[in-house]
Amino acid sequence: MKQLTDLQEFINEALDKLTFPQQPSDLYEPISYILSLGGKRLRPALLLMACDLFGGDVESAVQPALAIEVFHNFTLMHDDIMDNAPLRRGQVTVHEKWNANVAILSGDAMMVESNKLMMQVPDTILRHVMDVFNETATGVCEGQQIDMSFEQRSDVIIDEYLNMIRLKTAVLLGGTLKIGAIIGGAAPTDAQLLYDFGVNLGIAFQLQDDILDVYGDPEKFGKQVGGDIISNKKTYLLIKALELAKDHQAYELNKWLTMQLFDVAEKVTAVTGIYNELQIRKYAEEAMHNFADKAFKALDNINLPEERRQYLRQFADSLLVREY
Amino acid sequence: MKQLTDLQEFINEALDKLTFPQQPSDLYEPISYILSLGGKRLRPALLLMACDLFGGDVESAVQPALAIEVFHNFTLMHDDIMDNAPLRRGQVTVHEKWNANVAILSGDAMMVESNKLMMQVPDTILRHVMDVFNETATGVCEGQQIDMSFEQRSDVIIDEYLNMIRLKTAVLLGGTLKIGAIIGGAAPTDAQLLYDFGVNLGIAFQLQDDILDVYGDPEKFGKQVGGDIISNKKTYLLIKALELAKDHQAYELNKWLTMQLFDVAEKVTAVTGIYNELQIRKYAEEAMHNFADKAFKALDNINLPEERRQYLRQFADSLLVREY
Repeated sequence: MKQLTDLQEFINEALDKLTFPQQPSDLYEPISYILSLGGKRLRPALLLMACDLFGGDVESAVQPALAIEVFHNFTLMHDDIMDNAPLRRGQVTVHEKWNANVAILSGDAMMVESNKLMMQVPDTILRHVMDVFNETATGVCEGQQIDMSFEQRSDVIIDEYLNMIRLKTAVLLGGTLKIGAIIGGAAPTDAQLLYDFGVNLGIAFQLQDDILDVYGDPEKFGKQVGGDIISNKKTYLLIKALELAKDHQAYELNKWLTMQLFDVAEKVTAVTGIYNELQIRKYAEEAMHNFADKAFKALDNINLPEERRQYLRQFADSLLVREY
Repeated sequence: MKQLTDLQEFINEALDKLTFPQQPSDLYEPISYILSLGGKRLRPALLLMACDLFGGDVESAVQPALAIEVFHNFTLMHDDIMDNAPLRRGQVTVHEKWNANVAILSGDAMMVESNKLMMQVPDTILRHVMDVFNETATGVCEGQQIDMSFEQRSDVIIDEYLNMIRLKTAVLLGGTLKIGAIIGGAAPTDAQLLYDFGVNLGIAFQLQDDILDVYGDPEKFGKQVGGDIISNKKTYLLIKALELAKDHQAYELNKWLTMQLFDVAEKVTAVTGIYNELQIRKYAEEAMHNFADKAFKALDNINLPEERRQYLRQFADSLLVREY
């Protein structure tokens, strides 16, 4: 089995060689720009890993792996417009560096480019691969729309939230692994099990992210603690707290949610205090472990030599056991 | 041969049956909305016509024909955001009825839907069809970007303009016909000749549109005469006039182009007067006939019974001979 870090390096080299036409420059330069901002290249590396797992030639999966990275960055380019985000990976976003029209149109062109890259598979699996890719793309669009609609709502329930993160984040992980498996020659049932593994792992990973935002060590986590609390982001923790809070806790929580001017540290401390009283961390960790278990169950059923399943288990552990 | 009007009716019936998921409503309702605004359904009907021309079963081309209509409306939805357009076919645009974020994301989802519809062809032609579709989509994005860049430029030359309208408008007509031909079982050379026919006809049609804006009978043409002049739109006529105008004419033309406050009728009369002095209409008609000739030459070489070529000629004539 090839190591994930080697595959990530391999993807970076392939990305360096991926060029676009010179003209029109305002269409193609933003594509090269956003792809140059870096990132862990986890998704494309996982596509290669899935191919490798089933004995496929990693070289044959490079263009589809790039397709996933280009597609992912297309969604980031459009999401950044919608979120009015000034920065992406510490650099100016495309709609700020150029303008919103450029970001809309470059994103559209990126989606076409990702389709072209994904088409670079043998005829025998072309339809299967493209069907998975299109379903994944639909899921990501639906997830983003549901996430945006949550901003206007105060009655979001846990099941809606789990469905949103499944669509917005997890199906792309599942779809990526499934496409890699198909290219690697996996049987349809095994490709589907790897999809289930990826989707459930993706949900668990997002729940962990929600927990880390409040309970993570800022030095190890690399983000400001309580960022979600400050921005009233509807995470698993907040939705669960709104569900469980009674009387004084409910009053306090809503007071902080509606306050226009506040001391940032004071708000984080107060809301975390309510979370602690309600044992929100325990609920969130239970949910996370529930999805991780589903991921591992799917994995157990994949028809692969045990040491390859073990490799996947270790990968999942490395994603989920980030120190708090 | 089926009549074009029957094929347009056939498309309208198929569009009525094309449904999208109920949820998330802000993702799918705008798609149904923009598709319900009408239009001539010329592109999808032409895809069916091309299939029929080569003896293909029109029924087998319906989903790809819908793909072209959905793709075209996706580009309109995003173009309307970029152009800040309040109306589309006399109705409120999606970004006005909902908001820009909804229009961005619904457009993205529409593009995925158009890919899914286009995939509904036999395996034997899937790659060929998708390659043409992707190349067409790239061309349309490039054309829109070049068109937007023209607004900031005062040195656009005729060749750049012709390339822009080729990409923005004509390749979609060519690609549509080519895909229909492939589905109908045309030989690759014939499919390519039909593409050349469509692209050159599309350019001729756009040049005619430029001419009609100034010299068309408003009652027959259905648009305000001089709309392009009022908005300083860089059409073939304006670019040619800027190229040919000397001394006093150049001064007058630039005066009208830079004037912030003006009487609309006065500006249209003055600029049309300059066009007349420079015989711009003659140049534009020559260019239009030049591309129409190229279209007819490609048509002459298609390996089809003469009466079918004649059918295509009559269609081209009906597009180009709109009464002035």
